[in-house]
Amino acid sequence: MATGNISHGRILSIQSHVAYGYVGGKAAVFPLQCLGYDVDVINTVNFSNHSGYGRFGGSRASAQELSQIFDIMDQNGLLYPERLLTGYVPGAEATEAVTALAQRLRHRSPKLIYLLDPVLGDSGRLYVSPDVVPIYKNALHLATIITPNWFEVEVLTDTKITDAVSLRQATQVLHQTYHVPHVVISSIPLKSWLLDLLPAHLHPASASASTSEHLACIASSRQGSSSTVYATCFPCLPGYFSGVGDLFSALVLAHFTDEPTTEGETSLSRAVSQAVSKTHAMLVLTHEAAAALPEDERTVTDEELDVREPIRKIRRMRGRELRLIQGQDIIRGTQPIEFRRLQAWDTFWDA
Amino acid sequence: MATGNISHGRILSIQSHVAYGYVGGKAAVFPLQCLGYDVDVINTVNFSNHSGYGRFGGSRASAQELSQIFDIMDQNGLLYPERLLTGYVPGAEATEAVTALAQRLRHRSPKLIYLLDPVLGDSGRLYVSPDVVPIYKNALHLATIITPNWFEVEVLTDTKITDAVSLRQATQVLHQTYHVPHVVISSIPLKSWLLDLLPAHLHPASASASTSEHLACIASSRQGSSSTVYATCFPCLPGYFSGVGDLFSALVLAHFTDEPTTEGETSLSRAVSQAVSKTHAMLVLTHEAAAALPEDERTVTDEELDVREPIRKIRRMRGRELRLIQGQDIIRGTQPIEFRRLQAWDTFWDA
Repeated sequence: MATGNISHGRILSIQSHVAYGYVGGKAAVFPLQCLGYDVDVINTVNFSNHSGYGRFGGSRASAQELSQIFDIMDQNGLLYPERLLTGYVPGAEATEAVTALAQRLRHRSPKLIYLLDPVLGDSGRLYVSPDVVPIYKNALHLATIITPNWFEVEVLTDTKITDAVSLRQATQVLHQTYHVPHVVISSIPLKSWLLDLLPAHLHPASASASTSEHLACIASSRQGSSSTVYATCFPCLPGYFSGVGDLFSALVLAHFTDEPTTEGETSLSRAVSQAVSKTHAMLVLTHEAAAALPEDERTVTDEELDVREPIRKIRRMRGRELRLIQGQDIIRGTQPIEFRRLQAWDTFWDA
Repeated sequence: MATGNISHGRILSIQSHVAYGYVGGKAAVFPLQCLGYDVDVINTVNFSNHSGYGRFGGSRASAQELSQIFDIMDQNGLLYPERLLTGYVPGAEATEAVTALAQRLRHRSPKLIYLLDPVLGDSGRLYVSPDVVPIYKNALHLATIITPNWFEVEVLTDTKITDAVSLRQATQVLHQTYHVPHVVISSIPLKSWLLDLLPAHLHPASASASTSEHLACIASSRQGSSSTVYATCFPCLPGYFSGVGDLFSALVLAHFTDEPTTEGETSLSRAVSQAVSKTHAMLVLTHEAAAALPEDERTVTDEELDVREPIRKIRRMRGRELRLIQGQDIIRGTQPIEFRRLQAWDTFWDA
């Protein structure tokens, strides 16, 4: 995507800010800018670093502060973004304020493209207080695209995803009960039931690799009472990297355009293919850079040792910050990377 | 400057944040990132838009909040930037806190490159409360480079700049009394006394143009009890654009490197040449984009009409926001622009 002297439009991004490292807005805004978008940036928190370091500080914006900024922007005629991106918001009241804004913008423009990343938790653990969940459920109908991970899908749909039936059920609830046009399950472990379910052409390329080391990404666009489903699998890199979901969501939004599609893709599958490919390439770069660090900067995860020596964890977190600046040519599309194209999963709804 | 997969180092940027538009950190951080720097971003305010709109809102970080973020970053081993960039800080206490941090970083590393932009005012008017001025004076000795405009030079040196003697005097005070190694006077109107003072090879190219429509930029590097001075002139575009100084300072810092210099340049003159050239090209792009807007989006400055109809001013401000995203190839150096090279002003110190 060339950026030469044109703007692809204006995105309002509402999520967390950290001084050091790349999560929340720090993982999303620079890529969107590189891809030619003017980004209006509202910080829901101003923290020193992400919470995974164990020690962090700074301030949270109150619902009143957020609403005041929204109102003044509105009075100044500065609230006409073509796109809206929301991520982590601290607490129920602030989430209500952001939802009220989304409502206002949606009411103002049915053409608004709203990517709602329901940042609730990961790997079976909630990041947020449980009273935030119903607010997100009520906000879903405002979204154009949502990008939950598998755990967030479970929380939003009250459905444990363990097999074909529950996966279909959860997808159905998001499209039909919550009226979400485009659902992207950003990552779901490729357990044997899911591998068995996937058509052969969607299986990971390296047959030798154990399936537990792969993740699937599923993109579903509502089509009447059913949906068009695309998917791809990609290798899961060892260790936990923060900000990956924030980068991924930003890239999905950036690449979701109304340019004509070609055969074998939809607007959503095309955007998600770009997002998966670039995010994965960025992770590989980050993983390689982390592996090249001196030994004491790349301690393995060991919660017992971490408790005795907190600096261990801090060093690990620091070493695993996304290499967003070093990888900016990946974002921009000027550096060749392995392209991971989502393919149609035509049998998804077949019982 | 190629960015391919390398980092040019880490910059800690401490300045204002606005949701909409490009001033403070929003004008500085993206360019620094494009040029390959990892930027740690601490927001001294979180506002809706810059104050020139007349109406703005949001919150200021207190000295305590800033110090807490500095301390936690330090405890986490995240306070080892190679470079420091400070801009607008709200109020005396917060400015004291930022100065204390600069002191800590300078003490830790004599090699720290600290660009202090003393954001005090412009065109004869102070933006900040007068009790901030002595704090800046006390901070100057910590800086590697400062980038005041002519008015800020006057305020910092208590010297009205009206002729050769006062210009030399002010420069002398900054280098000798305040021990600043590199002084960049970012812009000073090219009045007739200054034009007469400048050697002929530094005069603006277009002899027909009235001198009042030009500005000079002067870069002075301390050399014993004197200094090496370089300068250039550039046309002044009509109307006021916000964030220009913030962009300029970021570019000076980004391009100030220890690569070997060639004949006719110093590290400082080379950096300032890049900064002047890119900033001016960005202004031309912005000016042209503003001129192409519908008529009611480009009302001329008229304070009387503005008071009666505040939306006039808001529209003008909106139209004049820097086109940073559209001009990112200028920043990156991949789009050809007119290069404005600073030239030696060998006679600067001749009485």
